[in-house]
Amino acid sequence: MRTFVLLMCLAVGCLAQAPHPCRSPPLLTGAMSVANEKFNAYAKYDYDALGERIRFKEMGSYENKTFGLDALLLFREGVMYTINHKNRTCKKERLKKEDFHPMEIPADAALLGQVILGSSSGPGQGLLVNTWYGERATTTGGKDKWMSTFTEFGCIPVSTTYYTDKTGWVLTTFFNIVVGIDDPQQFFPPKFCQGAKVDETAEAANFYSILKNIKN
Amino acid sequence: MRTFVLLMCLAVGCLAQAPHPCRSPPLLTGAMSVANEKFNAYAKYDYDALGERIRFKEMGSYENKTFGLDALLLFREGVMYTINHKNRTCKKERLKKEDFHPMEIPADAALLGQVILGSSSGPGQGLLVNTWYGERATTTGGKDKWMSTFTEFGCIPVSTTYYTDKTGWVLTTFFNIVVGIDDPQQFFPPKFCQGAKVDETAEAANFYSILKNIKN
Repeated sequence: MRTFVLLMCLAVGCLAQAPHPCRSPPLLTGAMSVANEKFNAYAKYDYDALGERIRFKEMGSYENKTFGLDALLLFREGVMYTINHKNRTCKKERLKKEDFHPMEIPADAALLGQVILGSSSGPGQGLLVNTWYGERATTTGGKDKWMSTFTEFGCIPVSTTYYTDKTGWVLTTFFNIVVGIDDPQQFFPPKFCQGAKVDETAEAANFYSILKNIKN
Repeated sequence: MRTFVLLMCLAVGCLAQAPHPCRSPPLLTGAMSVANEKFNAYAKYDYDALGERIRFKEMGSYENKTFGLDALLLFREGVMYTINHKNRTCKKERLKKEDFHPMEIPADAALLGQVILGSSSGPGQGLLVNTWYGERATTTGGKDKWMSTFTEFGCIPVSTTYYTDKTGWVLTTFFNIVVGIDDPQQFFPPKFCQGAKVDETAEAANFYSILKNIKN
């Protein structure tokens, strides 16, 4: 009888199983498109949560002007390189170590729902995803809003919308993701960056200063 | 030797195979979310391309006011019912038969690209999709722009962005699609609609008049 009750509890527990916030695999290679009203970009990236390193190679347009950008963010070392291949020059900036955020659904996120993108009627026709939302306190006392869709299996990012007062709604779509890093050298700055000096007096870089580099 | 050449041609042909415009299965049941700057809705729908019938059950907000809508579009009969369950009343309007468009990628669409939403690194982690774009001439001589993502396998709609001068960009996401109709009676108007009369003098209804019904 006791075994039966235990089995029943386990069964009910499994049936009641709702999706849980999750963290993506630590090594990812993939592509993304980022867009808001003024800004539109396509980027290839390498993401290493173990070494806290990200490499972005981006093409896009800002206020109808096209740009290219190659940025290497080494959070553990606290530096960011913005690489100009044409001129073979590098801009080296400080980066706040604590600004590294692993790709994850934070534990305090709320579940909006689980859906199948496409169809479950045939193989390869659909993708089971969970959509989460939440807020993040800003340093200025405000609150940024976000909504993220990750796959149920593998905790792979699919899309994110993020709202800040500075940027408005920014929609990011992730695709062609491979678990792993296809070229570990992507996390080394190119040789011609070796002479680059950090401007110690300048403010530390962050996502917005990448945008600023585009504008300038 | 001739067989070898033939096999080589076949192999190369297969490798060079690009996605082709396609038409979705004729019977679909699913859900969708539709959003533009002012408008935000969630709808369940039944779609029958054989009988040219669509049933929409929609909830949403327009300019921050919530609404509910139940519409039955019978293109072959040329009528649309807007059903009010609370008052048990129906509005019956004319519908242009030629306004039925099957869910498909038109033959003159251009391929933007093929990507995997999510990842191909594990089972259930990704969805192979094709994104197409094109223009559609409007009756007033203008051109509407659209971009659509359909699954490679099964030709299932995933998302569509459609631009008209009237609506701006409208983003539609499709999900929880099942091939088939789970309840064929969804295409019958409810009993209390039997007395409804078509206003023959009024203009024929279309997608925008559904929106107009919401506003009123």
